[in-house]
Amino acid sequence: MDRYTSLAALRAACLDLPSEDGAVAAEVAAREAQLTKPPGSLGRLEEVASFIARWQGRTRPMLDRISVLVFAGNHGVAAQGVSAFPAEITAQMVANFAAGGAAINQLARNAGADLKVTPIDLDRPTGDFTLGPAMSEAEFLRAVSIGAAAVQEADLICLGEMGIANTTPAAAISAGLFGGGGKVWAGRGTGVDDAGLDRKRLAIDRGILRHTAAIGDPLQVAARLGGRELAAMLGAALEARRQRIPVLLDGFVCTAAVAPLARLHPEGLAHTIAAHVSAESGHRKLLVALGLRPLLDLDMRLGEASGAALAIPIVRAAIACHNGMATFAEAGLTG
Amino acid sequence: MDRYTSLAALRAACLDLPSEDGAVAAEVAAREAQLTKPPGSLGRLEEVASFIARWQGRTRPMLDRISVLVFAGNHGVAAQGVSAFPAEITAQMVANFAAGGAAINQLARNAGADLKVTPIDLDRPTGDFTLGPAMSEAEFLRAVSIGAAAVQEADLICLGEMGIANTTPAAAISAGLFGGGGKVWAGRGTGVDDAGLDRKRLAIDRGILRHTAAIGDPLQVAARLGGRELAAMLGAALEARRQRIPVLLDGFVCTAAVAPLARLHPEGLAHTIAAHVSAESGHRKLLVALGLRPLLDLDMRLGEASGAALAIPIVRAAIACHNGMATFAEAGLTG
Repeated sequence: MDRYTSLAALRAACLDLPSEDGAVAAEVAAREAQLTKPPGSLGRLEEVASFIARWQGRTRPMLDRISVLVFAGNHGVAAQGVSAFPAEITAQMVANFAAGGAAINQLARNAGADLKVTPIDLDRPTGDFTLGPAMSEAEFLRAVSIGAAAVQEADLICLGEMGIANTTPAAAISAGLFGGGGKVWAGRGTGVDDAGLDRKRLAIDRGILRHTAAIGDPLQVAARLGGRELAAMLGAALEARRQRIPVLLDGFVCTAAVAPLARLHPEGLAHTIAAHVSAESGHRKLLVALGLRPLLDLDMRLGEASGAALAIPIVRAAIACHNGMATFAEAGLTG
Repeated sequence: MDRYTSLAALRAACLDLPSEDGAVAAEVAAREAQLTKPPGSLGRLEEVASFIARWQGRTRPMLDRISVLVFAGNHGVAAQGVSAFPAEITAQMVANFAAGGAAINQLARNAGADLKVTPIDLDRPTGDFTLGPAMSEAEFLRAVSIGAAAVQEADLICLGEMGIANTTPAAAISAGLFGGGGKVWAGRGTGVDDAGLDRKRLAIDRGILRHTAAIGDPLQVAARLGGRELAAMLGAALEARRQRIPVLLDGFVCTAAVAPLARLHPEGLAHTIAAHVSAESGHRKLLVALGLRPLLDLDMRLGEASGAALAIPIVRAAIACHNGMATFAEAGLTG
């Protein structure tokens, strides 16, 4: 049974969000000030430790169970010639994930995280959004529910995706939510050439024009211009929030997928960290629009949750320092 | 017996440097192009994997033995009131390292690296460089030799330091090597106030004026304006190069310490990666001057090799992807 069976129920869930733990925030700040280092000298590691603690509701946060959730889907808009790779690569890469041969397999293992890959209807691409809605409301809600159901108890969740052509729906969602057209939001994805980039920009602009009446509703934008793996990431991010599990976001597609949560509620992404900024040109703009500051900036543009998984050891380091360091008093230091 | 007993011998070693393995570089690039991802999509992870492979001379690099080398020293220039903390903190922090309570203890363990801390004559600070040379040639050569001797067989080395007031000698070395005075290179270190920052700038300018005749020689700059822990990092970086061990540099003090190697030889730091850019204001300028692009930018300013150790898991991730991913042929992917 799907968690969300109406857009109204989903919208209500997006507006009824739990907050971080304020008491833990104060305790974490008090401990941080006593650790054997100049105040603030661990920079963003201190922010990250506090963030994880506040959402876990634990003064000494844990990272025993980390889930990397990757969703895969195919896209009708691929027919517009917007990608450098053919659509069958999506299923082939899902097989590569299962066989352990992809980048995310190595990165998840390197980070001590579990990888769960959920392909959604790969043999049934979404509709071509230049011609009609990518998904019906029912299809959208089903994909959101699949994403929500993938969230099991965890200390931290990484979200990511695989789907040939999916930087095009990501750019279309960004344009729908924040304005600007294909010229602003389209990038080269996996490496499309100049002619392909022109087709991509045109497809995005045509999509925005076709669905202009729905642009005011972030969930309609996600349904009509998005894709199943994007909808699933939205559902997973929402479910993580309901369970107060902190989330590491991956690149452009992942960020665009969850952006409707921030348009529906000003604190809708407060439980997330942008793990990195990718080399896909729209991502930096989208992070600025969302007020998210990325942890890493390493010219990556792979997807698969690769950037999110790469940030896990940074989060582990932040927690290790916060939990493990001696205080000035314990170390007998001149304070 | 010290490795270097004359400045001439040290200078000769700095000019006679082994190169990376060109044959390995070609093999690594050929494999990288066959891995199941769009070309270049792992961004700097691909660069890092190639860098480690070239210096290790292994087409499948290893990271079994990682050494974090931290050197500690005290500074006569502390008497000028340039630091927010008293000099006795240096020895107290060395004790904290031994007890496992400092940030670097947590970060090294988190990264699966061994930590070796080498305090050098903490009860005998260097001379105050505003009044005379920080070190005699013999003292400088001894500290360089201690650093060189700390380098044991390893797959990767991280360099870092502890020394109250040592961002002042770091700034003075930077000024000596690249021009500009205290206003350009002095920052707030562990958190000095406005008056302390003024004293720091003045001390740097006085040091540059006092030792102006020696400014043309990078090793004289390091001896007269530096410190023992800085000299040891120079010696360790040089010895790592002689053994072709790749090196992760830490923050401003570490980078300034090894900068003379780049002034003596255009490829003197080719075996190093700037692990991060710190919040200490001079560091970003120094990295630009050296042509080094940092991996991480997380507002850290602690020293102790903390930024270098934090980058270890990024290097592990790069190697894991390069060594572990399937090729297009292995995965049966449409190429």
